Amino acid sequence: MGRVYLVGAGPGAADLLTLRAARLLAAADVVFHDALVEGDILALAAKATRIAVGKRCGAHSTSQRFINKRLVDAASRHEVVVRLKGGDPLLFGRAQEELDALAAAGVEVEVVPGVTAALAAAADLRVSLTRRGVARSVAFVTPRCGEGEPPHAWARAAAGADTVAVYMGAGDAEAVAAALAAHGVPRERPVLVIESASRPGVRSHGGVLAELPALAARRGGGPVLILLGEVARDAACARPAASPRTQRSAAR
Amino acid sequence: MGRVYLVGAGPGAADLLTLRAARLLAAADVVFHDALVEGDILALAAKATRIAVGKRCGAHSTSQRFINKRLVDAASRHEVVVRLKGGDPLLFGRAQEELDALAAAGVEVEVVPGVTAALAAAADLRVSLTRRGVARSVAFVTPRCGEGEPPHAWARAAAGADTVAVYMGAGDAEAVAAALAAHGVPRERPVLVIESASRPGVRSHGGVLAELPALAARRGGGPVLILLGEVARDAACARPAASPRTQRSAAR
Repeated sequence: MGRVYLVGAGPGAADLLTLRAARLLAAADVVFHDALVEGDILALAAKATRIAVGKRCGAHSTSQRFINKRLVDAASRHEVVVRLKGGDPLLFGRAQEELDALAAAGVEVEVVPGVTAALAAAADLRVSLTRRGVARSVAFVTPRCGEGEPPHAWARAAAGADTVAVYMGAGDAEAVAAALAAHGVPRERPVLVIESASRPGVRSHGGVLAELPALAARRGGGPVLILLGEVARDAACARPAASPRTQRSAAR
Repeated sequence: MGRVYLVGAGPGAADLLTLRAARLLAAADVVFHDALVEGDILALAAKATRIAVGKRCGAHSTSQRFINKRLVDAASRHEVVVRLKGGDPLLFGRAQEELDALAAAGVEVEVVPGVTAALAAAADLRVSLTRRGVARSVAFVTPRCGEGEPPHAWARAAAGADTVAVYMGAGDAEAVAAALAAHGVPRERPVLVIESASRPGVRSHGGVLAELPALAARRGGGPVLILLGEVARDAACARPAASPRTQRSAAR
């Protein structure tokens, strides 16, 4: 009986994987990965069978129950089974269903945390999410909800926090802005829309909450993170964190 | 003129550094690090001068202004200057003062995000911080406040979120519990106190909010993270995420 490793793939850049994640990918017999995981990260799983199990922006490319079953089956045939999830597995990673299914089947599981998208976006912008005298609370929220969930439950948490990171919200920017305004967030609250954080094509657009739908409409096809709060005021423009020059200077 | 890299050292385990952080440490001419960064991580900065600049749990071992000045000075004399901070530099890392001081001095800065303590604690406990139908918002807060800050401002954000991660709160557990209760958080809300997340000595104590002071009193000398919310109910006991057995099996 093998072991299943729920591994965070980080925000996108391959060198933002943890050393442990890279080691486990190299040792993996099989890797089940989300759609958003980049090819250069999967390439680290040199000897593994790689199986895409979808979940692009919440779309159920593969049903969760089927993924659970495949993980249990794989653990019965392989020693090192990696379930690779974008960002961190335990933050908007829908990991609990998999953890519960593996526990129910008696499969040993370890979780390897990863760098979550909001922290990579903040790094690209060189904006601290917390700031003395300005921000001591950061809410990570998503407007994306499962069946039977109250659609606006997330907005209360966002309204109470100094800084807010909205995951998977750009597609519903109109509703996101409306829900925040309905919970008393000022329309003049600074906002940043960051696309493809940590990736070569990273770009960002800044403004205020009232402009969020317009800012989100300028996005391309990359994953988008929305940052809201005073810390987003006067933010630097996003640029790739690891420029070729950096790679060279740091490689010496 | 060199460049300053604000680098996240991650939660404690050396192999939870990112590949980029490890590469930059190896390339660093000088490393300014917080007190909580472990020796085996500093050892990766083989050719660098290593300078501890304190900040253990908010204590001002070295004044922030003095740290800023030393970073600027170092950038004028070295090519790769690393400012190494526990966890992620932009989440409770007091990074903004350093970013502003370096920008004012015309020093180029890059930020390398890291794995933050709450995600490492959740990984050790194998508890997803978000869960379909249960938790779609996670608040990262700290009760530790600077001069002139309203002491309870953080509690409103915590009260509005499904899941809460309290940083640097164990020493004030009595006040933390009282502030949360005052903001309407039920005294029966499940809570977990995790000490030394990701480190060999990791341990956790679970209960409900009303028991938080008693649970926090059982801690030792390691860094402590408090998790609050329904997701903390029936959590597995914390155990080191990378057991020797894992190291072996994954190393093959």
